Amino acid sequence: MYTGKVTVQYRKGILDPQAQAVHSAVKSLGYNSVKDVEQRKEFCLKLDCENKEQAKNQLEEICQKLLANPAIEDYQFTVEEE
Amino acid sequence: MYTGKVTVQYRKGILDPQAQAVHSAVKSLGYNSVKDVEQRKEFCLKLDCENKEQAKNQLEEICQKLLANPAIEDYQFTVEEE
Repeated sequence: MYTGKVTVQYRKGILDPQAQAVHSAVKSLGYNSVKDVEQRKEFCLKLDCENKEQAKNQLEEICQKLLANPAIEDYQFTVEEE
Repeated sequence: MYTGKVTVQYRKGILDPQAQAVHSAVKSLGYNSVKDVEQRKEFCLKLDCENKEQAKNQLEEICQKLLANPAIEDYQFTVEEE
């Protein structure tokens, strides 16, 4: 069994309205020390693959097809054997 | 300037409908090797605080008041000086 950890975030230069909303909310609570907020999604998948190479290939495909929108998002992932 | 990294995830035993939806979508694409999917939110905040202790205290408050719902979510965070 392999564990894949995927991080998905907006590409540099793409505005993230959710992170902006969090930043506004933080400031409205009085925390003016907060100068920037970024938000990412993290996915943790358990893969029952025959070897690490297969797990990596499948995870790469899943990222491209489903977890990230390559037009506006970047992703990184790691795969570890359990 | 300090960088705070916060990870928010559902508490153990709380069903995560979004992760379940991702798992269903992954399986419907034919990836039956995927046995489990978990999803987390990650926030990265820049804090202009006088010292690390102050940054940690503010981040703890922000997590409790805004970033996590303590009834159903757990959070962890780290603070590093830049």
